[in-house]
Amino acid sequence: MTTASSGLFSTLFDHGDAGVGDQAWLQAMLDVEAGLARALERAGLAPPGAGAAVTEAARAELFDVALLGSRAAAAGNPVPALVKELTGRVPEFAASAIHRGATSQDIMDSAAVLIARRVLNKVRTHMTASADAAAALAASHRDTIMAGRTLLQQAVPVTFGLIAAGWLTALDDASTELERVCSQRLAVQLGGAAGTLSVFGQSGLEVVALLADELSLPVPVLPWHTDRLRIVQLAAAMAGVCAVTGKIARDVTLLGQTEVAEVSEGPGTGRRRDDSDACHTARGGSSAMPHKRNPVAAVLVLGCARRAPMLVATLTAAAEHELQRAAGSWHAEWEPFADLLRITSSAAAWTADLLAGLEVNASRMQANLAAAHELPMAEQVAAVLTPTLGRLPALDLIARASREAAASGQDLSAILISSPDFAAALAAAGIGAAELTAAVDPARSLGAADAFISAALRAHRSSCESHRTEEDHDRKSERRKEDA
Amino acid sequence: MTTASSGLFSTLFDHGDAGVGDQAWLQAMLDVEAGLARALERAGLAPPGAGAAVTEAARAELFDVALLGSRAAAAGNPVPALVKELTGRVPEFAASAIHRGATSQDIMDSAAVLIARRVLNKVRTHMTASADAAAALAASHRDTIMAGRTLLQQAVPVTFGLIAAGWLTALDDASTELERVCSQRLAVQLGGAAGTLSVFGQSGLEVVALLADELSLPVPVLPWHTDRLRIVQLAAAMAGVCAVTGKIARDVTLLGQTEVAEVSEGPGTGRRRDDSDACHTARGGSSAMPHKRNPVAAVLVLGCARRAPMLVATLTAAAEHELQRAAGSWHAEWEPFADLLRITSSAAAWTADLLAGLEVNASRMQANLAAAHELPMAEQVAAVLTPTLGRLPALDLIARASREAAASGQDLSAILISSPDFAAALAAAGIGAAELTAAVDPARSLGAADAFISAALRAHRSSCESHRTEEDHDRKSERRKEDA
Amino acid sequence: MTTASSGLFSTLFDHGDAGVGDQAWLQAMLDVEAGLARALERAGLAPPGAGAAVTEAARAELFDVALLGSRAAAAGNPVPALVKELTGRVPEFAASAIHRGATSQDIMDSAAVLIARRVLNKVRTHMTASADAAAALAASHRDTIMAGRTLLQQAVPVTFGLIAAGWLTALDDASTELERVCSQRLAVQLGGAAGTLSVFGQSGLEVVALLADELSLPVPVLPWHTDRLRIVQLAAAMAGVCAVTGKIARDVTLLGQTEVAEVSEGPGTGRRRDDSDACHTARGGSSAMPHKRNPVAAVLVLGCARRAPMLVATLTAAAEHELQRAAGSWHAEWEPFADLLRITSSAAAWTADLLAGLEVNASRMQANLAAAHELPMAEQVAAVLTPTLGRLPALDLIARASREAAASGQDLSAILISSPDFAAALAAAGIGAAELTAAVDPARSLGAADAFISAALRAHRSSCESHRTEEDHDRKSERRKEDA
Amino acid sequence: MTTASSGLFSTLFDHGDAGVGDQAWLQAMLDVEAGLARALERAGLAPPGAGAAVTEAARAELFDVALLGSRAAAAGNPVPALVKELTGRVPEFAASAIHRGATSQDIMDSAAVLIARRVLNKVRTHMTASADAAAALAASHRDTIMAGRTLLQQAVPVTFGLIAAGWLTALDDASTELERVCSQRLAVQLGGAAGTLSVFGQSGLEVVALLADELSLPVPVLPWHTDRLRIVQLAAAMAGVCAVTGKIARDVTLLGQTEVAEVSEGPGTGRRRDDSDACHTARGGSSAMPHKRNPVAAVLVLGCARRAPMLVATLTAAAEHELQRAAGSWHAEWEPFADLLRITSSAAAWTADLLAGLEVNASRMQANLAAAHELPMAEQVAAVLTPTLGRLPALDLIARASREAAASGQDLSAILISSPDFAAALAAAGIGAAELTAAVDPARSLGAADAFISAALRAHRSSCESHRTEEDHDRKSERRKEDA
Repeated sequence: MTTASSGLFSTLFDHGDAGVGDQAWLQAMLDVEAGLARALERAGLAPPGAGAAVTEAARAELFDVALLGSRAAAAGNPVPALVKELTGRVPEFAASAIHRGATSQDIMDSAAVLIARRVLNKVRTHMTASADAAAALAASHRDTIMAGRTLLQQAVPVTFGLIAAGWLTALDDASTELERVCSQRLAVQLGGAAGTLSVFGQSGLEVVALLADELSLPVPVLPWHTDRLRIVQLAAAMAGVCAVTGKIARDVTLLGQTEVAEVSEGPGTGRRRDDSDACHTARGGSSAMPHKRNPVAAVLVLGCARRAPMLVATLTAAAEHELQRAAGSWHAEWEPFADLLRITSSAAAWTADLLAGLEVNASRMQANLAAAHELPMAEQVAAVLTPTLGRLPALDLIARASREAAASGQDLSAILISSPDFAAALAAAGIGAAELTAAVDPARSLGAADAFISAALRAHRSSCESHRTEEDHDRKSERRKEDA
Repeated sequence: MTTASSGLFSTLFDHGDAGVGDQAWLQAMLDVEAGLARALERAGLAPPGAGAAVTEAARAELFDVALLGSRAAAAGNPVPALVKELTGRVPEFAASAIHRGATSQDIMDSAAVLIARRVLNKVRTHMTASADAAAALAASHRDTIMAGRTLLQQAVPVTFGLIAAGWLTALDDASTELERVCSQRLAVQLGGAAGTLSVFGQSGLEVVALLADELSLPVPVLPWHTDRLRIVQLAAAMAGVCAVTGKIARDVTLLGQTEVAEVSEGPGTGRRRDDSDACHTARGGSSAMPHKRNPVAAVLVLGCARRAPMLVATLTAAAEHELQRAAGSWHAEWEPFADLLRITSSAAAWTADLLAGLEVNASRMQANLAAAHELPMAEQVAAVLTPTLGRLPALDLIARASREAAASGQDLSAILISSPDFAAALAAAGIGAAELTAAVDPARSLGAADAFISAALRAHRSSCESHRTEEDHDRKSERRKEDA
Repeated sequence: MTTASSGLFSTLFDHGDAGVGDQAWLQAMLDVEAGLARALERAGLAPPGAGAAVTEAARAELFDVALLGSRAAAAGNPVPALVKELTGRVPEFAASAIHRGATSQDIMDSAAVLIARRVLNKVRTHMTASADAAAALAASHRDTIMAGRTLLQQAVPVTFGLIAAGWLTALDDASTELERVCSQRLAVQLGGAAGTLSVFGQSGLEVVALLADELSLPVPVLPWHTDRLRIVQLAAAMAGVCAVTGKIARDVTLLGQTEVAEVSEGPGTGRRRDDSDACHTARGGSSAMPHKRNPVAAVLVLGCARRAPMLVATLTAAAEHELQRAAGSWHAEWEPFADLLRITSSAAAWTADLLAGLEVNASRMQANLAAAHELPMAEQVAAVLTPTLGRLPALDLIARASREAAASGQDLSAILISSPDFAAALAAAGIGAAELTAAVDPARSLGAADAFISAALRAHRSSCESHRTEEDHDRKSERRKEDA
Repeated sequence: MTTASSGLFSTLFDHGDAGVGDQAWLQAMLDVEAGLARALERAGLAPPGAGAAVTEAARAELFDVALLGSRAAAAGNPVPALVKELTGRVPEFAASAIHRGATSQDIMDSAAVLIARRVLNKVRTHMTASADAAAALAASHRDTIMAGRTLLQQAVPVTFGLIAAGWLTALDDASTELERVCSQRLAVQLGGAAGTLSVFGQSGLEVVALLADELSLPVPVLPWHTDRLRIVQLAAAMAGVCAVTGKIARDVTLLGQTEVAEVSEGPGTGRRRDDSDACHTARGGSSAMPHKRNPVAAVLVLGCARRAPMLVATLTAAAEHELQRAAGSWHAEWEPFADLLRITSSAAAWTADLLAGLEVNASRMQANLAAAHELPMAEQVAAVLTPTLGRLPALDLIARASREAAASGQDLSAILISSPDFAAALAAAGIGAAELTAAVDPARSLGAADAFISAALRAHRSSCESHRTEEDHDRKSERRKEDA
C-alpha cells in the first residue's frame, strides 16, 4: 500500500494524486491519536497540555515507516508499534493520553475515514469539472446531428448534445450520491476493546463526541467496528463514479475509432506532472505510427474504472465481520479500500481531462449519418405513410425500399421516388416530394432531444447551486471552528 | 429465470417469495405496454378506448411463455414477439397504441423497475420485522452479560443487548438506504429507438410523464437506457441488506456452536409452506444426530447473502453501456438483477424468522465468561493500579498475574490476593479486596453498553416513525389516485 | 434453479440447452442414491436386489418437486425429504440400502458432478464446432488483408485469417483445459457425516470405489466435502471458455459496426427452436429499422460470458468451508454453479452459431484500410529509410509526411513523391518509386501472419486428434463396461 | 504498484516478499528489452555486441522511476519512455537493437511473465513447506480423536490427523495445478504492432524462438497479446492456492477459539524481519489483554486470501481484449495481476508459518468431545440396535434417549442403562453393557479415517517426488545453459 505519487504507474492509475500511500495512512492514524488525546484532555481524562503535546509529536515525517512495518506482524496491524513509538516521543505527563481506551481498529477505521474524506473531496472536484465540461458540450452541440447507435449499429439520428447531456446527468447523479454518502456516513469510530468503551465508564459517549468534534466527523449512533455498512455504501458510491466515467470513456473510444472519427481526445491537458521534455510527445501520439490518435485518457479511465466492481465486491463480501472484531475480513478491507479510492480518483481526474479537451468533428458526424443513405429515417417515413396505408403495409413498403437502398447504395428517398412501384404508393398516400424530403431530414427527426438537453442543463445548474450552498456551509463551519 | 415459488430450492433461496420468474417478467412487461397505451390515449396519440382495450388484453395468463421464449432469439429479447402476440389480441383500432414510439429496452427496463418495486417492498417488510425483533432482544437483554469476542478470542465483557443493538442499527440503516433508493431511483424508462422519443415529435416529454403517472413511478430527467447508475444504486442498496443480514447470521452460527451454545434458533417459524407432515421434523433437527441444533435459518441467510457481492459486481461491471444501446452488457443485467432481488428477499425473510425465534441462553453466557478466570477484566484491574503504579508497571504486573491465572486455572483476583508478591503490590497501591472484587466484576466493566442500547432503540423508534409517515403518505396518494 | 428449457429467456441464456434445472438436479440426486444402493449391494452391505429395486424407483418423473421443495427448509437442503420419499417407494427389504452411510452433501456434491459432466460434454461439442469454424475461416482468409486495430485505432495491416487463427488457438486452449479438468477433477464424493465413512467400518474405501465405478467417476484421494478446489478449478475452466468466446464476440460486434462493416452475422442458424412462423424475421433483423443487421449471437455471447467472472468469484470465495461441513458457503455454491454451467454452455453454443454463419466482407476490409492513406505502412517506409538516414531522422521524416498525408487526404507515398523536400530525402536514401510502392503495399507488410496461421491450424489438427483418441478411449471403456 | 518490501503493511500482505513493486517491473521490462537485443543479434538482425551492450545498460538501478512514471501518461504505459532512456544509455551501434520490432505490450506482457515465474516459484516453496508441515501433523495425530463439526455443530468423531490430511491433499492439489500452469502457460509474448511481427519479414518466428530461449520461457503457438486465457489460468491457479490456504486458516481460527481451544498458533516463526526489540511481544499476544492468543497468522492468511476471488474476476472480466490491442482491459490487468501474485505469496508464506508452529491440544479435543455426552456416537448406537429393532424404531429410541441425555447432562450410555424403559429395549435387542460401551467409544467410530490419512500421505510422497524430478530437470537445464 505504498502507492507513491512518483511511481512507475502513478500518472496512469493515480492521476488524481489521491494520496493513499503509507505516508497518508501513517499521518491519518497519527491524526486520530492526536485527536483522541485532545478529546481526552477536554473531557478531563488527560492532563492539561497532553493534547497539544501529542499533536506536536504526531507528525508522520518523524516516524520510520519501515520499522513500524517490520513490527506490524506481531499484532497483525501497525497500530501497537505506532503507539509505542508515539509514546516514546511525548513528555511523560502526556503518555497516558495516548491511545487510552482505544483499540487498534478504532485508530485504523477512523484514519480510513479521514483518508476517504480527503480523497473523495478531490473526486468531487474532478466530477464537478467533468460535469461542467459535459454541460458545455451539451449546450454547444444542441444541433450537432449524428447517428444514434444501438448494438453498435446505426439506428436513428440523435445529437451530440444529447449524448453529452446523458453524460452530464450521469455525472451529476453520481456526484450527488457521493456527496450524500460523504456527509452522512463518514463517521468517527471509537469503541475500545469490544465496543463498550469500558475504560471510560460513564464518559464514553462524551469522549466519542469530542473526538468527532476534533476530527470534524459525524458521531455514529453506535461504534461501527463490526457494522461495515458504511464501507459498503462508500464503496458503492465510488463504483457509481467509476460506472459513469467508464461509460463516457467507452463512448469516446467508440466515437474516436479510425472509421468513425467523430471525436478525438485533445493533445492533452493530462501533462501536469510531465517535465518539459516529455511534452515533445503529445498524449496519444505514437512515434512509430504517427497517424494514430490513441484515446489515452479514455483508455486509462477504463483501465481504472473496470477494477471498481470487484473492489466493491471485495469490500461487500468482507462486511461479514465476526462478533466484536473480524478475524480476517477487516484486514481484507484495507488495501482494496485504498485502491478503490485511488482508482476512482484517477478515473474521475482522467475524465475531467478527457472532457475538457474533447474535439468534436461535426462534419464527420454528418458524413457518417449520410453514408447510411437515409435508412436511419426509415421509421419516420413509415410514420408518414401509416395514417393512409396502415401500419403493417407502411412498414412492409419501407422495408422493401430500404433493402433496395442498402443494396444499390442509393438514398431511401431516391429509391422511393425513382421506382414506379413505390412512387405509386406514395402518390396513393398523398405524400409529395416535399413531405418525403422532410421525412428523411434528420433534423426533423430528433423528437425530444433538445428538450432533454435543456432538462439536463437545468438539473445541472440546480445541482451546482445545492453543492455551492453546501460548500459555503462547510466553509462557514470551518471558519467558526477556527475562530473558536 | 423461471424461478418458481414451487421449485426444489425455492424455500431456501426464495424464502421471501420474491416473484421474479417468467410470469412476473411477462406481467410486468404487459403492464408497461398497457400503461403506455393508456398514456398515449391520454396524450391524444391513440384513439379513445385503446388504453382500456390493451389493458384488458395485457394479462400474463393469456400468453404462452414457451412460445414467446422460442421467438426471443431472433431479436435477442422477448419484447418483439410479445408485442406481436399482444397486438393480435386487441381490436384493430387499438393496435396502433401498442408499443408506439417505444423500443424493447423501454419495456424491459420499466418492467424491471416494476418488479423491483414490488420485491423491495417485501424486503422492507422483512427488514422491519427483523429490526423490531432485534430491538426486542436489545431491550430485554440490556443486562445479559457475556464475553465480547475479538478475532474469535474472548476479550472484555459486553452484553447481549449491545450485540442485538448493533444488529438493530445496521438493519435500520440498510432499510433507510433501501427506502431512499426505491423512492428516488426507480424511475420509468421511455426513450424510443435511440433516446430521443423521435416518433412523438414535441410530445415526447408529455408521454413520458403520463406513462410515469400510469405506473406510479418518478419521471427521470433523461431516459436512462444507457445510464445504468440507477441499477448500480439499487444493487448496492440490496448488497447493504445482504451485508447486514449476513453479519447477523454469522454471529448466530458462532454463538450457536456446540462449545459456545449461547444462542440457538428456535424450532422454526420458517415452516409456513410446509405441509403438516413435514412439521414432524423441526427446522435444524437431524434424525441421525438428534443432539444437533443446526442453525438452518442462519446458514440459509449466509447461503443467500454471500452471493450478493458478486451480483453487485456483475451489475456494476455491466454499467458500461455503449452509445445508445449496449451490445451485451444490457443483456448481462437481466438474470443477475432478478437473482439479486430474489436472494436479498430470501436473506431478509430468513433473518426475520431467525431473529423472531432466537433463543438466548443467559446462564451459558455467564458460564463461558466465568471460564475465562476473570482474565477479560485484566484491563480494568490494570486501570485501577495505574494511578499509583504507573501505566507500564501496572500492565506488567497484570500480565504476569494473568499468565499465572491462565496456567493455574485460578481466577485472576485469587492469584492477586494469594501470591505474596502481588498482594504486596496491591497493598502498596492501596487496593483492597473490595476494590479488587469490583474491578473483576464484569457488570462494572460495561462502559457505555447501556447508553449505546438506548441510543440504538431511540434511533429505531424515530426510523419507524419516519417510515410510517412515508407509508401513510403513499397510502393517501394511492387513495387520492383511486378516487380520481 | 428451475431454469427450464422452455422459459421466456431460455433461448438467450440457455441456448446450449444445458439442463441444469430442478428436474436435472432431482434425477442426478436419484442417480447417486441408486448408484450407492448398487455399490452397497456389491459390497455385501445391502441385500441382493436392493440396488435394482432402488434404481427402479429412482426416476425423477415419479417425484413431486414442489412437495420436496416445500420440505427442504427443515434441513436446509432437499436430500432428507427426497430420501424419505424414495424410501417409501421401494420394497422394505431395499429400504436399508438407501442413503446408508451417506450425508446430504455426499448426494448433492456427487449429483453436481454428474450434472457438470453432462453439461461440459455439451460445451466441448460446441467448442469443437466453434474451433472447426474458426479454422475454416483462418484457412480461407489467409490472404484477406485488413487493418489491424490497436486501442480501436487502425495500426498496421493484418489478415482476417490471422484474426481467425487467434480465435482458433484460444478456443482450442480453452477446450483442452476444460477436458483436462473434466477428466481429472470430476470425482465422486462420499464421506458420510463428517468425512470418515464411520458407518462402514473398514469397508469405507471399498464403498467409495464401487460408487465411483457405478457412476463412472474417478475416486478422490480423500472425500472433498470441505476441499472445494475441484469446484474452483471447474469454475475456472468454464471462465476460460467464457473469456475466449467473449473476446470473439467483442471482435465481431466491433468489426460488424455500421461504419466498419467487415463482418456480419449470417441470417442465423440459431433458430433451431423457433417455430416456422418466427422464421419470418431472421435473427438480427429489425422491422422498424430494416437496415440494421444486429449482431444478436455476438450480443448474447457477451450477455452470457460477462457473468462468468463473478460466478467464478462467488464459487472461489465460497471455497472457505468450515471444518467438516460449511455453514453457508456450501449452500451459496449450488445456484451459481448451475448458472455458470448454463451460461457457459449458452455462450459456447452461440459462438458455434456465430462462427458457422459469419459473413466476411473482404472488399470492405480492403476499402477501410485504403481509406487510411497508407499511414498504417508508415513504419515500413521508415524501416526502408532507416539504414541510410538513421532511425530517428527516418522516423521524423515519416512523421512529418504522415501528418501532411492525414491533413491533405492524400496517400503517404504520393506526399513523399510529390513534395520536393521529401523526394530529396528519398533520393538521398537511394529509395526509388518501386521501393516506395513496395513499402506501402500492405501485402508485403504481413510479417509472420501466414506462418502463424499455419501454426494455429497445425496445433488445431493435433488437438483434434488427441481429443478423438480420448473419446475413442472413453467409448471403449464404456463398451467394456457394458460388456461386463 | 510501488509495493515495497519495507512498507507499513508489507509484513502483513507481502509476507512472502513477492517482489512485484516498481523496481521489479522496471527490471523485468529491462530484462525483456535486453533479451530481445541478444535475440536480434543471434538472428543477425542487430550488430555483434549489441546484445551485450544493451544487457549491460539494462539495470534498473540506473533508471529514475519517478521520471519514467511522469512520462508514462503520454503513451498510457511506461515502455516508450523506458525505451528512450535505455537507448540513451547504449553506444550508438547498439541503439538499433533496442525494442526493434516490438510494441509496448510485448515488453510489459513478457515482463509480467518473468515476474510471475519468480513469484510463483516462491509460492511453490511456501506451499511445499506448508504441505510438509500438514503431512507431519497428519502422521503424528493419526489417533488424536476430536469432534467432527458440521454447520459448526459437533457431529461425529474424527481425528485431527484426518483434518490435517485434508489440508495436505488440498495443498498438494493446488501446488500441482500451480506447477502445471507455470510450466505450460508462462510463455513469452512478442508480436509487434499488431501481432504479425511485420518488421521482421520472414524471420519473425525465429526471433520469437530466440527471445524465448534468452528468457528461458516457452514459445507460444501465436502471440497472445489479445488472447488472455494464460492470464485467466494463472489467476485461477493462484485463486486455488488462496482457496486452500483460506480454508486452513478458517479452520485454525475456529479450532483456536477461546471456548474450543484445540489448537493455537505458536509464538511465531513469522518474525523474520522483526528487529530484536519487537520480539518482546510474541505474535498474537496483546499487552492489554494478556490472556489472548490471537491467531494472527491465520487472520492474515484470510486477510490476503479473501481478496483473491475478486482479483481473479477482475482479470477474467478483463480478458475481453478488443481486436489487436485492448483499449482499457489490458491496462486494468497490471495492478490486479501484481496484487494477486503478492497476496497469494503472502497467504502461502503465512500458511507455512502457521502450520510449522501449530500447537495441538489433544486433551482439550478429548474434553470437548466428552462434553457432548456421547451424543456424537448416537448414530453408532442406533446402528447396533438396527439389526434387531429395525431402522426406524432404533432411530426413534436413540432420539428419545439423546434428548434425555441432552436435558439431563448425563452420558447417552448412562441414560440407556439406567432407564428401565431403554434398558428393556437393549436387553430385547441382546445388547449388553460391553457392546454399548464399545458403541459409544469414539475410537471405534472412526471408519476410514486412518486409511484416508495413509492415502493422503502416500499421495503427498509421490507428489513430492514428481516435483523433485522436475526441479532437478530445471536445475540441469539451467546448468547446461550456464555452461554453454
